[in-house]
Amino acid sequence: MDKYPSDVERMIRLALEEDLGPGDVTTDAVISGDVQGRASLFSREEVVLAGLAVFQDVFRVLDPEVAFELCFGEGDRIPAGGCVCSLRGRLRSILKGERTALNFLQRMSGIATLTREYVDRAGTGEVKILDTRKTTPGLRWLEKYAVRVGGGTNHRFGLFDGILIKDNHIAAAGSIRAAVDLAGKNAPHGLKIEVEVENLAGVAEALSAGADVILLDNMSVDEMHKAVELVGGRALLEASGGVTLDTVGPIAQTGVDMISVGALTHSARAVDLSLEIVSDVSADA
Amino acid sequence: MDKYPSDVERMIRLALEEDLGPGDVTTDAVISGDVQGRASLFSREEVVLAGLAVFQDVFRVLDPEVAFELCFGEGDRIPAGGCVCSLRGRLRSILKGERTALNFLQRMSGIATLTREYVDRAGTGEVKILDTRKTTPGLRWLEKYAVRVGGGTNHRFGLFDGILIKDNHIAAAGSIRAAVDLAGKNAPHGLKIEVEVENLAGVAEALSAGADVILLDNMSVDEMHKAVELVGGRALLEASGGVTLDTVGPIAQTGVDMISVGALTHSARAVDLSLEIVSDVSADA
Amino acid sequence: MDKYPSDVERMIRLALEEDLGPGDVTTDAVISGDVQGRASLFSREEVVLAGLAVFQDVFRVLDPEVAFELCFGEGDRIPAGGCVCSLRGRLRSILKGERTALNFLQRMSGIATLTREYVDRAGTGEVKILDTRKTTPGLRWLEKYAVRVGGGTNHRFGLFDGILIKDNHIAAAGSIRAAVDLAGKNAPHGLKIEVEVENLAGVAEALSAGADVILLDNMSVDEMHKAVELVGGRALLEASGGVTLDTVGPIAQTGVDMISVGALTHSARAVDLSLEIVSDVSADA
Amino acid sequence: MDKYPSDVERMIRLALEEDLGPGDVTTDAVISGDVQGRASLFSREEVVLAGLAVFQDVFRVLDPEVAFELCFGEGDRIPAGGCVCSLRGRLRSILKGERTALNFLQRMSGIATLTREYVDRAGTGEVKILDTRKTTPGLRWLEKYAVRVGGGTNHRFGLFDGILIKDNHIAAAGSIRAAVDLAGKNAPHGLKIEVEVENLAGVAEALSAGADVILLDNMSVDEMHKAVELVGGRALLEASGGVTLDTVGPIAQTGVDMISVGALTHSARAVDLSLEIVSDVSADA
Amino acid sequence: MDKYPSDVERMIRLALEEDLGPGDVTTDAVISGDVQGRASLFSREEVVLAGLAVFQDVFRVLDPEVAFELCFGEGDRIPAGGCVCSLRGRLRSILKGERTALNFLQRMSGIATLTREYVDRAGTGEVKILDTRKTTPGLRWLEKYAVRVGGGTNHRFGLFDGILIKDNHIAAAGSIRAAVDLAGKNAPHGLKIEVEVENLAGVAEALSAGADVILLDNMSVDEMHKAVELVGGRALLEASGGVTLDTVGPIAQTGVDMISVGALTHSARAVDLSLEIVSDVSADA
Amino acid sequence: MDKYPSDVERMIRLALEEDLGPGDVTTDAVISGDVQGRASLFSREEVVLAGLAVFQDVFRVLDPEVAFELCFGEGDRIPAGGCVCSLRGRLRSILKGERTALNFLQRMSGIATLTREYVDRAGTGEVKILDTRKTTPGLRWLEKYAVRVGGGTNHRFGLFDGILIKDNHIAAAGSIRAAVDLAGKNAPHGLKIEVEVENLAGVAEALSAGADVILLDNMSVDEMHKAVELVGGRALLEASGGVTLDTVGPIAQTGVDMISVGALTHSARAVDLSLEIVSDVSADA
Repeated sequence: MDKYPSDVERMIRLALEEDLGPGDVTTDAVISGDVQGRASLFSREEVVLAGLAVFQDVFRVLDPEVAFELCFGEGDRIPAGGCVCSLRGRLRSILKGERTALNFLQRMSGIATLTREYVDRAGTGEVKILDTRKTTPGLRWLEKYAVRVGGGTNHRFGLFDGILIKDNHIAAAGSIRAAVDLAGKNAPHGLKIEVEVENLAGVAEALSAGADVILLDNMSVDEMHKAVELVGGRALLEASGGVTLDTVGPIAQTGVDMISVGALTHSARAVDLSLEIVSDVSADA
Repeated sequence: MDKYPSDVERMIRLALEEDLGPGDVTTDAVISGDVQGRASLFSREEVVLAGLAVFQDVFRVLDPEVAFELCFGEGDRIPAGGCVCSLRGRLRSILKGERTALNFLQRMSGIATLTREYVDRAGTGEVKILDTRKTTPGLRWLEKYAVRVGGGTNHRFGLFDGILIKDNHIAAAGSIRAAVDLAGKNAPHGLKIEVEVENLAGVAEALSAGADVILLDNMSVDEMHKAVELVGGRALLEASGGVTLDTVGPIAQTGVDMISVGALTHSARAVDLSLEIVSDVSADA
Repeated sequence: MDKYPSDVERMIRLALEEDLGPGDVTTDAVISGDVQGRASLFSREEVVLAGLAVFQDVFRVLDPEVAFELCFGEGDRIPAGGCVCSLRGRLRSILKGERTALNFLQRMSGIATLTREYVDRAGTGEVKILDTRKTTPGLRWLEKYAVRVGGGTNHRFGLFDGILIKDNHIAAAGSIRAAVDLAGKNAPHGLKIEVEVENLAGVAEALSAGADVILLDNMSVDEMHKAVELVGGRALLEASGGVTLDTVGPIAQTGVDMISVGALTHSARAVDLSLEIVSDVSADA
Repeated sequence: MDKYPSDVERMIRLALEEDLGPGDVTTDAVISGDVQGRASLFSREEVVLAGLAVFQDVFRVLDPEVAFELCFGEGDRIPAGGCVCSLRGRLRSILKGERTALNFLQRMSGIATLTREYVDRAGTGEVKILDTRKTTPGLRWLEKYAVRVGGGTNHRFGLFDGILIKDNHIAAAGSIRAAVDLAGKNAPHGLKIEVEVENLAGVAEALSAGADVILLDNMSVDEMHKAVELVGGRALLEASGGVTLDTVGPIAQTGVDMISVGALTHSARAVDLSLEIVSDVSADA
Repeated sequence: MDKYPSDVERMIRLALEEDLGPGDVTTDAVISGDVQGRASLFSREEVVLAGLAVFQDVFRVLDPEVAFELCFGEGDRIPAGGCVCSLRGRLRSILKGERTALNFLQRMSGIATLTREYVDRAGTGEVKILDTRKTTPGLRWLEKYAVRVGGGTNHRFGLFDGILIKDNHIAAAGSIRAAVDLAGKNAPHGLKIEVEVENLAGVAEALSAGADVILLDNMSVDEMHKAVELVGGRALLEASGGVTLDTVGPIAQTGVDMISVGALTHSARAVDLSLEIVSDVSADA
Repeated sequence: MDKYPSDVERMIRLALEEDLGPGDVTTDAVISGDVQGRASLFSREEVVLAGLAVFQDVFRVLDPEVAFELCFGEGDRIPAGGCVCSLRGRLRSILKGERTALNFLQRMSGIATLTREYVDRAGTGEVKILDTRKTTPGLRWLEKYAVRVGGGTNHRFGLFDGILIKDNHIAAAGSIRAAVDLAGKNAPHGLKIEVEVENLAGVAEALSAGADVILLDNMSVDEMHKAVELVGGRALLEASGGVTLDTVGPIAQTGVDMISVGALTHSARAVDLSLEIVSDVSADA
């Protein structure tokens, strides 16, 4: 994982402040500052791991002397019961960072795991599984990164780095063609023009208007087949709308280029990881 | 909803910046700045609504002139297909805020809806359904607020406002009694002392050490019954560990005072809400 | 001008803090807080005006009661000696905001004025005048906005919203084709692929590799002519490299689609605007 | 260059965020994370170098492992074609920091180069060349630092660290004497009192009122001569207003103590520096 | 009180966050959101009031609908038992802001009250009572403002807006004259040169070196008398070092121009103010 | 001293920015950047030391190469004239950090010293000396930490981590019992319920309502005796209100569990510490 944007660093600090506030009253009252500890991170179910760097950075922000030993790497499939990594350092630091580090890692790994499942179900073809903008406020970068770790591909990051003409844009412009023309004239030239349509007539109109990408919104598998034929490679096709693990395979079979799945980020559950900690009471004594 | 902490305001701005970056290239290219719009927020499933104030604030940060009319209030149970509220204002502002506002509202309502279900399943007794610290980084306040909206009760906010002595604290101190004594001596006097135990022997030891609250970690329903009898009202009892919608009822029957459920926040899915927007192309013409 | 991103608001505050620090020692010592003032903003040369909203916001941050009356609008060509707008309010507020407000407005209008000159010299054809990323640190949004006000078109905002494959990318990938393939496979699908080349062989290679846009770096007018013929509309062409007011016309004649000009932002000078202030010593007396 | 204020560090981060946003889509797609690179920074024209520390810090913020070897130092005059420094490190880091680092360095060196020219034209006497507050919003510290590197001297940093009584202050106070008296009474005692005047009568009045410094605003060279004679060393004299490279020499001859030149910062152009990068594709292979 | 710098606004928010964290558990649990309240601010001792605007802003940040009625103004001497102002609004808002608002007001009024006492003891002459940089971290602007309210005068705000040559500067430069020369050559021309000396020989040397202001550090009243005679008005004289309420009068008699007193800010105690609150339980019922 | 919260780091930076602004004009003008210095920190009176880590961090933020040698540790009682620690590094860095570092250390040590005095006067019993929320805005964490260093105990940090029912809460709820019931129902279960009362009737009522802690507000020593008897260990008792060094002993004798003293933080004076600096002019020559 490359250096992430500074907003991610801010989120790590914010999450720690949220949990620690003026201090960990239990740990500070009960455990002396010189007690050392060791911990092992286990997965209680089979998961695709994502977020190891953030997991480590949470502890590093608290205490640069916490040391890590990794047994698995980012994107690895961890078996149920597998030991992901071990860490050692001041027991106080381990206890203070535990919950925050796990909150990041469990969520990100949940997304990677679910994405991998969608990718596997889509089959061995060329189709790409895309995420959406239905992400957790403040965590978009990390969640889209987890999608990539799981084998998915990122759709536009936000409203600023991709053109997507939807029904309201079309209504305001007067027609698909008018909207496409306005985008071509006013938007940065490096962005492809994607148009969302709801039926085959829309596909034909978008194609004729010069759309580079056509989003098939909530169409049946049958209609998608026809759209693929109709377009014949002259534009990219993206299937979208209520895609599930059951429907992703058949949709992939239609020959669309991409399938976007909101559930990757908005409904992935946190996977079950836990940190087993041992204090070395006598370590420094 | 009272004024929320300034960190929540920061999260709203951060989420908008994340989505908008230097601008909405599609909307700015296609829709002129003076077009007005109206929108209605619908729920596609039955939900308990939480987050209306944040939903509105997202738009207000973008454009203070967006106006709202509410059909339901915070905490109301919205039927499937129900219209939650309507809004009107500059179409550009509505389109730019839509996704971010929904991302907050869908997640928070998802938590409130799930919490209500746990509360209902727990039955009509005195037992409280509690959240945990297994929240989304940066969103803890909002997620714990959504738990309250759903009828749940908040456990400590973070490590700073509640004492919870776990196995590592006990190991480092030498015994439950030693840990309780240290907490009583060193921690602020306004905090009760809660001790996590795994069996009845632990319950007895914690009680005799003077714990105010005893957390029964992953005990069977049978053991919980015995713990309730053993304690006889001399301390509060909290059940915890892998509680599900199926087990919450039987656990409530044991007579414990509180049941904490990590799933309320770590595994609630986003509920299905959508904003239907209409542009008033001729409104200002 | 729509609401600008929150980073722009931060820059306005930062610029005011930079100038005001703990206070305006002269004004606070010499002028009492209840003296009112009026001021007129004049242009001492012919300019295209850009930045009026920022100009006003500088004063509004200091004192929401400063009032403005505009004689010209954003993008207007102001004649030498023209009165752009007048303002009235507390004299202290006018004096404290003057320099900071002008520093923004003079720079932004300088960019708009220079851009308009390039656009005019490029002639009446379809060619677009583009900016670059050679902007002032911290002011990119405002400077790119000023380019639009001057009739120019924005290139990508940063490294995140446009693909531009340069010589180092090609060298690392092994060939233009390999680089284009990697971009097609790994980058978001909504971004066109632009490739920078230095000669006609490069143009041919980029075209055959499937580039959507080809940047002609430092080519002669003659070569550009040949590139336009060679490509024959199968890709967009952007001329770049040392373009001046003298060469922009001939380059436009070659039929390229776009001409990017670093000088628009990196070498525009501040235009000569001044604020003539009158104190109303007796106004409130 | 000493440690600069924390606002400068913030500007470096802000400039990087502006350019990188959620990531460099081209580089991340095309170049693998372990490719190493080398680069040399060349000047295409003769320049006075300013901003080397900021240039390096841009890369260091991105990646602390980028290493530098300097051939020239801050304030050195670099010949056209001269190699300023070389750097080596991860190719991705070099490509991501390149534009931002150059944007700082080109602007700062442009200011230092122009300042040096003014200083040289002013001749070998005692006269100081001063900057003004006509700086780029957010960059005042760096631009005033570049003026010092070029041999110039800083005027007050902002409104808070120097008293400068202008016409509006005089009008509000009633007379030069009244304004000077108010400043002496109310402003911090460690600041000299400077008064701006437009003619010789003003000079006489300011002198008699006890001004420590008199600013001669837009006076002719002839008038300045007379002002110098009139004052006879009893106050410092600063020439100001539309000073150019052609007029700075004759003004210096009048015997004024200081000449302030807004053009140093508001109209310096970015000098022509470029980074030539080589990827070491096989370095780590 | 003019608009204060944005750092002051930040301190107000920071102080509120410090006290409120995720919420006021008592008030939120016990008092419903629609209960209104009234409060009166009393002084239990005679004080000079400073900080009313900050006091009000604390509540305004929490709840813009809290309304104030002032009985006394900034700088007024409030008799023991006097009612300073009254406020009304939501009881929750009043209770949440109470402590933070008082913490500012009690400290600032403490400083103003002590300053007034020093000023009164110094007598009716021309001597100015100055503050120092011995202020509370983060509160310098507010504390120096309170000194002005109490009738004192501000010394330099920080290290950046005044030259003060101390023993280490002199040692490093080699002599007082060398240090003064370096300051004259390198520091901004708008700043007077102040030199700290410890005896009459130092006074003579500083005077001959051209110091504008001489700080007499820890001299006896007798030596100060001699210093005043020696200098004869050719430089300003500032007395400093351990000045107390008992010694400020005799020092003022020596004829020095200024007396600086660290105790004004570093040892003022919080004055005794209290807010008497009444809830209007039935107000909205 | 453990790692402190990130707000403390922000305060350190804010305090340095406050003092340094755009730079130390004297030091930068007079002392060259390569001169080394040594300094010794002395205490001019007997003090309990608190804040050494902050003292060091101020210098480290400025210049990581400043090195420290400690003669005393946190919480040690330093005799008058004792040398606390010595430091060495660039003279510029020492001079720039001196005042800010001392401002923190003198205030914190003042609080620790005063707290120790209260603790000593309270005698050898079990009674705890508590702080209050009457702290300096922005410095609460550091001031409460200093109280602990002096042997005191922290009361709740803010409104969020402790329940304290005061007269307004009681009035709004209708009775002590009603307020206690609401707190028990609505506030987090981990917080004890403390009730403030003014007489013995209140004590009885609070006890019968189930209060865990009863705060005796401004009661006489005699009444406190009776309260202790009345309660007989069924609740904790806290004495509060105008406690002085003279009254703390007799109050402790009454048998209350805790005595809270606002003066610990709101009226501690800065103790007299000074930094003696020596420049090593020839060190690097």
